[in-house]
Amino acid sequence: MKKSKVLALAGGVGGAKLALGFNLILDEDTLVIVVNTGDDEEFYGLHVSPDLDTVMYTLGGIANPDTGWGITGETFRSLKRLQQYGADTWFNLGDMDMATHIRRTQLLGQGNTLSQVTNSLCSSLGIAPSIYPMTDHRLRTIVVTEVGNMSFQEYFVKNRCEPQVISLKFDLSSECAPSPGFMKALKASDLLVFCPSNPFLSIDPILAVPGVREKIKGFQGPRIAVSPIVGGEAIKGPAGKILEELGHEVSCVGVAKRYVDICDIFIIDRMDAHLATLIEKLGMRVVVTNTIMGSDEEKRKLAQEILSLDY
Amino acid sequence: MKKSKVLALAGGVGGAKLALGFNLILDEDTLVIVVNTGDDEEFYGLHVSPDLDTVMYTLGGIANPDTGWGITGETFRSLKRLQQYGADTWFNLGDMDMATHIRRTQLLGQGNTLSQVTNSLCSSLGIAPSIYPMTDHRLRTIVVTEVGNMSFQEYFVKNRCEPQVISLKFDLSSECAPSPGFMKALKASDLLVFCPSNPFLSIDPILAVPGVREKIKGFQGPRIAVSPIVGGEAIKGPAGKILEELGHEVSCVGVAKRYVDICDIFIIDRMDAHLATLIEKLGMRVVVTNTIMGSDEEKRKLAQEILSLDY
Repeated sequence: MKKSKVLALAGGVGGAKLALGFNLILDEDTLVIVVNTGDDEEFYGLHVSPDLDTVMYTLGGIANPDTGWGITGETFRSLKRLQQYGADTWFNLGDMDMATHIRRTQLLGQGNTLSQVTNSLCSSLGIAPSIYPMTDHRLRTIVVTEVGNMSFQEYFVKNRCEPQVISLKFDLSSECAPSPGFMKALKASDLLVFCPSNPFLSIDPILAVPGVREKIKGFQGPRIAVSPIVGGEAIKGPAGKILEELGHEVSCVGVAKRYVDICDIFIIDRMDAHLATLIEKLGMRVVVTNTIMGSDEEKRKLAQEILSLDY
Repeated sequence: MKKSKVLALAGGVGGAKLALGFNLILDEDTLVIVVNTGDDEEFYGLHVSPDLDTVMYTLGGIANPDTGWGITGETFRSLKRLQQYGADTWFNLGDMDMATHIRRTQLLGQGNTLSQVTNSLCSSLGIAPSIYPMTDHRLRTIVVTEVGNMSFQEYFVKNRCEPQVISLKFDLSSECAPSPGFMKALKASDLLVFCPSNPFLSIDPILAVPGVREKIKGFQGPRIAVSPIVGGEAIKGPAGKILEELGHEVSCVGVAKRYVDICDIFIIDRMDAHLATLIEKLGMRVVVTNTIMGSDEEKRKLAQEILSLDY
């Protein structure tokens, strides 16, 4: 296995799995994980960063594998009482999870950046690699649907992905820029990996941070993407449905088309081997392997295979 | 029993007991409870109002009788994790209790006053009487001790009342005024009751709200105080220790001296009957009765006795 400085871009569950794979084999100073914060939202007055939490909890070994969100073994006593107090509790937060958001909100309120807060939370959870939000500023994903605009969590959780998606857009503050850790990693890394995350809802927000797409176009090392769509379906989440509604093919080819110009190697599952030539025609090298990461061993294996590729 | 519009001034546990007694016998439109907020403090970025919570939880039937704070049957999963995140967790907050502070902080952040927030929380808890904070503005009790100035919670909880108290002072904002509900009750009530709360730490902060002392001096009906000191000891809390350290007698006489000019009838326990004449010399009528409120029946009885007095 080559020694590489890896920059992994990730959303929630799928991204966290591959990030954990890298974490199991790389030294702590050779892995940077940059996470989508387009889904961040305030609930009950607390700053919730769903994707950062999923990555943190996964690498910290406390993620609930059954739900894809939250901490394993949770209770919901605080939420139940918030509901009694008239709070609109469609967004589930467990008692332990609540502490994450309370602490984040407290530290942000004290003037810390989201990067600094994330660093503090990760240290407490004993997480070695560097996890950074894509930006320390506001960039929110807006899902434009037939029933109106909504935040991603409103779309995903409150409306269970039911409304038809017309388009996605990003609401960003004028000062929005890549977080300092992301900037540094874009310069210092020699391998860029798009984790198998939703291209619209996890990767596009990262690319929408001003300057990021250009920097990735000019990245000094190989850029590798892993398809989150296998056999015509998303492994998890609404990627398939959104691809279809936005007029794209629900396949790894549909995903690959999103990565033209910013990706050199596209990794697809064995199940999709027959689609390899279609993707090669887009100008990317294709690698066919097992991409479904059920066990930690499978996560490690996929990460190892990515690091072992002959660039 | 006479029909009276009662205004009860209360701190924490002792005040809440008598407030509950009144609540058990009065119609909802005839009882106003005004609560000390000098002990309010921010913990983990959340606005905590300890005395308001004690009164609310007591009248809502969910107060933990063993601790004197918090909700019965609590768990502390959120707090434990906050500790893991590096928060200084000397102030215990249970998971259900946490919801109160999260909701209060959220509603305050949305521009509601503490009165409005308290009203919302009370409605959710099914509490009929009107409970108001003494003020919607900042008035903090500062305990000046031999080891420095501290908030009441720092003194009471963090330092377990150990430092010797030199004096008490109040840090208040320039706009500090009685809450609208308190103002209205001062005009509309025909009976004012100082609940058996700490005269320095619960009643003095209420009296320190600009204008309150004058309004109580000119109050249109009888003003009745119940001594929180029985047999030379506080029933609960540090009242005895503070009376002593500030050079006062640790007795109901020491308390009565704090109420000269603002109280007409002073109620002491049978155990202190021998001190009645000393208090009468201060210019107050003395009523001797059972003031220890263990059971709800005892709470109701004391309240009833107060309402039945011949003014």
